[in-house]
Amino acid sequence: MNVVPVILSGGTGSRLWPASRQQTPKQLLPLVDHRTMLLTTLERAAAVPGAGDPIIVANADQRGAIEAELDAVGWTGTRVILEPVGRNTAPALAVAALDTHDDPLLLVLPADHVIADEAEFVAAVGVGARLAEQGYLVTFGIMPTRPETGYGYIEVGEALGEGANAVARFKEKPDAETAERYLTDGRHLWNSGMFLFAAGRYLEELEQHRPDVLDAARSALARAKDDGTAVILDADSMERAPSVSIDYAVMEPTTRAAVVPLDAGWTDVGSWKALWAIGATDDDGNVVDGDVELIDVRNSLVRSHGRLIAVIGLEGVVVVDTPDATLVSSIDRVQDVKALVDRLTELGRTEVERIDRDGGS
Amino acid sequence: MNVVPVILSGGTGSRLWPASRQQTPKQLLPLVDHRTMLLTTLERAAAVPGAGDPIIVANADQRGAIEAELDAVGWTGTRVILEPVGRNTAPALAVAALDTHDDPLLLVLPADHVIADEAEFVAAVGVGARLAEQGYLVTFGIMPTRPETGYGYIEVGEALGEGANAVARFKEKPDAETAERYLTDGRHLWNSGMFLFAAGRYLEELEQHRPDVLDAARSALARAKDDGTAVILDADSMERAPSVSIDYAVMEPTTRAAVVPLDAGWTDVGSWKALWAIGATDDDGNVVDGDVELIDVRNSLVRSHGRLIAVIGLEGVVVVDTPDATLVSSIDRVQDVKALVDRLTELGRTEVERIDRDGGS
Repeated sequence: MNVVPVILSGGTGSRLWPASRQQTPKQLLPLVDHRTMLLTTLERAAAVPGAGDPIIVANADQRGAIEAELDAVGWTGTRVILEPVGRNTAPALAVAALDTHDDPLLLVLPADHVIADEAEFVAAVGVGARLAEQGYLVTFGIMPTRPETGYGYIEVGEALGEGANAVARFKEKPDAETAERYLTDGRHLWNSGMFLFAAGRYLEELEQHRPDVLDAARSALARAKDDGTAVILDADSMERAPSVSIDYAVMEPTTRAAVVPLDAGWTDVGSWKALWAIGATDDDGNVVDGDVELIDVRNSLVRSHGRLIAVIGLEGVVVVDTPDATLVSSIDRVQDVKALVDRLTELGRTEVERIDRDGGS
Repeated sequence: MNVVPVILSGGTGSRLWPASRQQTPKQLLPLVDHRTMLLTTLERAAAVPGAGDPIIVANADQRGAIEAELDAVGWTGTRVILEPVGRNTAPALAVAALDTHDDPLLLVLPADHVIADEAEFVAAVGVGARLAEQGYLVTFGIMPTRPETGYGYIEVGEALGEGANAVARFKEKPDAETAERYLTDGRHLWNSGMFLFAAGRYLEELEQHRPDVLDAARSALARAKDDGTAVILDADSMERAPSVSIDYAVMEPTTRAAVVPLDAGWTDVGSWKALWAIGATDDDGNVVDGDVELIDVRNSLVRSHGRLIAVIGLEGVVVVDTPDATLVSSIDRVQDVKALVDRLTELGRTEVERIDRDGGS
């Protein structure tokens, strides 16, 4: 089995602002432990039997941070493909598929996921590989643990041997009532955004359903500049590429979608509350990082970035300090961080792009 | 009438940490408006008819900040007396009294009070001056506006002409029940710490009740160093001086204490909640200063010091940012800031002494 991990590092993780910035998004930060999520994703992929050198597809803005990370851990052999402009997952994966040789299996992993149980993950990939070698396009479906309305769902169809099923259909993000039903009916899984398929099969499906995506990807790669350390895709071609996800472009229209259920402590670290939930708590339910003093604080996430952060008499708050911006939020309102970042972007604030180490003052 | 304002700038204002530090305590910060409380106190005193050049008695740590402030506003003629070590108000005022000539009235004003109605203040000082010229030691009593347990009280005695009374007795900080009674019985005023008396009368009372304080003050002044811009009291003499307040040393034992009620929008800005209460609020009850973005925030105080501070979905919080420390507190728990500062002092943290502009990181 020849498996090429394709690590998607396109997102900016704006819900984890102010730690996450466009140039150093959450996957490039040591948010969960002392390692970045990009690195733990690379290591997770490397644990898969038959895994070869990985491909990272990233926003060109992130180049410096990614190269620094790879240099630091000595991860040579990694191919870095940079998008001057992001066009969602379908074009990115088309480029990755076109960039490989000998039709390997592509193991597609977003760079910003956390999976606690690596053995379980590797086992699921093994199940998926069997199907992918038969020409299936495999998605990994997460066993829901709450009535989440922020994810798409996969309705499970007929069994395809042990530990895998056909996909009956993909479901949009549900309302709360529907999400409750999905949680208990045993037939719905979260659409994780992790995939496994043969490179050639993905390109065949694109050719059939979205030849425009394939054309743009071919052009972007043909006109790319390879400067020895990274492949920079052609900006004009990428600008022309339709912005579409692999879900819409291929997984929904294909007749050969399969799903492998995964119950391995998965989280996409989609918010500060999610990070609090997976963090190591003290006796008062607090997750603390850095130079922090607490007096009567409970169920809170407090992260210092050098300076002293003191919190008194609060429950369920998030305090995230950086050199040039500090967030203080109710832990139940952290989804609004995205709206905040949108507002700051409209205002032209540089605090959404990068951290100013001089602290803005 | 010859009045010498004596501005007491001894306190460190630890309840207003992290803005207030030992070297730049709250009276030396533009907390209430763009001017420092020291400056507004000097201006308030200067508005009193007959007021001459003021004396500032301050902690020697504050020298740099005080001189910078006086230079900036061109307040020449101010006499600055520096204490190498603080010994409460009785010795400080003894030194000030000994430092004057021709037995002026001393108008004693802590440097960290805010008084909204200056005309009312000046009128009350006029009433007090009449009594002080008759040999009374006058204290200004604040009309209570809430059942405050954090202040001492003055029980009002017989009338001494219009707008003044003898002091029946001084009362310690009351419990909540007693404070409620004081609020409504019409006979109790807050002990503000503002006084007016002839310099010679104060020294007479000290000679009678606390000659040890007077001896130490004489020695501290006799051995002081005057370097042209400030008088630095003798450290050994001040070390030897008893640490005692004017209230205990003189006002309680004297038979000639008078009180002038003052209803002029007084506050000692004793906490972040007090600062919130006197601040200009937006439509949501927030008092905001600096680079701040709020989403669904109410009844809160948020102060930035250069960097961007974003707050989401909270009510009744205090966020105070400085280059090297940030405080986040429930507004109803801001009294605990003092306990926090005590803890930081025990830990030997420099963040209680001065602001590190490099931000600690």
